[in-house]
Amino acid sequence: MTLPLTHPLRDGRTAHSAVVRAYSGDRPERLPVWFMRQAGRSLPEYRAAREGTGMLEACLTPELSSEITVQPVLRHGVDAGIFFSDIVVPLRLAGVDVDIASGVGPVLGAPVRTADDVARLVDRGPLTPEALEPISAGVALAVAQLGTTPLLGFAGAPFTLAAYLVEGRPSRDHLAARTLMHADPETWTALTGWAADVTGAFLRAQVLAGASAVQLFDSWAGALSAADYVAHAAPASTRALSHVADLGVKVVHFGTGTEHLLTAMRDVGADVVGVDYRTPLDQANKLLGGTVPLQGNLDPALLAAPWPVLEAHVRDVVERGAAAPSHVVNLGHGVPPTTDPAVLTRVVTLVHELGA
Amino acid sequence: MTLPLTHPLRDGRTAHSAVVRAYSGDRPERLPVWFMRQAGRSLPEYRAAREGTGMLEACLTPELSSEITVQPVLRHGVDAGIFFSDIVVPLRLAGVDVDIASGVGPVLGAPVRTADDVARLVDRGPLTPEALEPISAGVALAVAQLGTTPLLGFAGAPFTLAAYLVEGRPSRDHLAARTLMHADPETWTALTGWAADVTGAFLRAQVLAGASAVQLFDSWAGALSAADYVAHAAPASTRALSHVADLGVKVVHFGTGTEHLLTAMRDVGADVVGVDYRTPLDQANKLLGGTVPLQGNLDPALLAAPWPVLEAHVRDVVERGAAAPSHVVNLGHGVPPTTDPAVLTRVVTLVHELGA
Repeated sequence: MTLPLTHPLRDGRTAHSAVVRAYSGDRPERLPVWFMRQAGRSLPEYRAAREGTGMLEACLTPELSSEITVQPVLRHGVDAGIFFSDIVVPLRLAGVDVDIASGVGPVLGAPVRTADDVARLVDRGPLTPEALEPISAGVALAVAQLGTTPLLGFAGAPFTLAAYLVEGRPSRDHLAARTLMHADPETWTALTGWAADVTGAFLRAQVLAGASAVQLFDSWAGALSAADYVAHAAPASTRALSHVADLGVKVVHFGTGTEHLLTAMRDVGADVVGVDYRTPLDQANKLLGGTVPLQGNLDPALLAAPWPVLEAHVRDVVERGAAAPSHVVNLGHGVPPTTDPAVLTRVVTLVHELGA
Repeated sequence: MTLPLTHPLRDGRTAHSAVVRAYSGDRPERLPVWFMRQAGRSLPEYRAAREGTGMLEACLTPELSSEITVQPVLRHGVDAGIFFSDIVVPLRLAGVDVDIASGVGPVLGAPVRTADDVARLVDRGPLTPEALEPISAGVALAVAQLGTTPLLGFAGAPFTLAAYLVEGRPSRDHLAARTLMHADPETWTALTGWAADVTGAFLRAQVLAGASAVQLFDSWAGALSAADYVAHAAPASTRALSHVADLGVKVVHFGTGTEHLLTAMRDVGADVVGVDYRTPLDQANKLLGGTVPLQGNLDPALLAAPWPVLEAHVRDVVERGAAAPSHVVNLGHGVPPTTDPAVLTRVVTLVHELGA
């Protein structure tokens, strides 16, 4: 299978965009930049669009998800849109009782803790194209509005999904999930395998509907030792990415607190490694052998600092990124909700000046 | 100044204990073990003692803090007691409006965000011996009961204290604190300097009252890049430790997610590095040049796994620890509240068998 003829990568709309080229290891004329969580609470137009609509409901309403996806591209002039969604959306599409509690994050109706719980989950089977219809429709609407600006697909990695399923809510240490992976590796493998297929199907639907590249987020991978990551998380991430392997789109892989996992996170099948703000890009490049396109890694904390401090930081990140084969400027974590949008626009302008 | 004549390190009670010897780089006959948060919610006798008493109130009631400190030593036969306290206790002693909210953690009445806020804090001055009286008394009572088992003193590192002060509550990314350190380094230095003196005085009081070694906890240091740690956190940690430098007790330094900071955390003046569960001890030893006594690093998640899985893990940690100059077995983070105390006792027995 290849991409549909009308896909932006095939019909030429985005194949030569700065982001797609940089993800391929090229150094385009323009240094590309986008921001994780650029579509979200920092924008007044987002808060207006979301008013009265729950987070997951917004993700599943194509008119809304597409509008929110396009908002930051129009406002900031970033070089890519990222599809507005949430890591747990594919779980909801699979019929899992999950919602986003304000100020808390994803909360499950009942955590998945036992072999029986996991068996019942696996019995739900994979996501059907019908279930994915709101996603395909939202992506298609966004892609139509974005023109030559690429849309990036988005999905959570199976370990992070499994951590939410087992804990039932956000947690610092993911103790219950990490206990399960050691106490009952067979059940853990079944759980993460199911999560891989669900999140892989979610990613594939976005690509087929027009996403020009994808990013896999493993928000909690940093809680694992390298040995645990390789043994108990990486196989499912490889399986998730196998769902888009025949489509020829580049894959970015990102997690936080993952300096000790950078090579392992590349080896699951990523083309680009997203680096969090803790690891300087020149050091990340060294750890990765100097062969991997990098994305990142402005410190979100500096978005609230005076402009001269932030400007010096942007310049430093761009300089360090020059060590890598190619570089897409981004944050080293998501946009904080309290960020002044004008600051993000100013960063985009500066990055484009520096890269010119 | 040296230790009082009746101090357990001077009068010979604890100088030859396995923990004190291992902290000095010796390999005693007995492989020592204790657990971070061993005095706490996993013990029914703790829950009984605490009933009806708030966390900070318990920390400041010498009869209670000493009883709780001694409980796990009596039950498990661990090789050290750790003084029952909380990172924010010295803030409370300094008059800061802080409490521990159940299920949340430390919550401040008002966060400390501006130069004026910090100036008001600094105006409170250092902790007086009178303010520290409940701590000195609690330590003395515990030391009297512990006999030849050393008591370890406990304090939070200035960065972690400052993070709580600025955020006003626990936070994942410590964005406001990290913004302040870059946006207004002068105010940040004043804040962490004050925190260093307060937490240093808290540590000193524990040593003078009979603690045979101390542990500095930098719970949130892992949120920092190495460059930020060295520039904006390490100087205050050095200053905190200078408060006990003349007393000749060994200092353990611990944080989580700190593989990238191990050498920097040693260099603030630590004798022993506590390693979290993410970094295998043989690797930590290599990163530290093979010259530093190590403490750690059983994965708390495995305390809830079947015994054969946990036993294999304990054996692996002990084997890897053999690479270091010396090793005090501990967890790679605190005891989870849901831990079966019988499992901890069994781990102690196994460690002592393995080390014999």
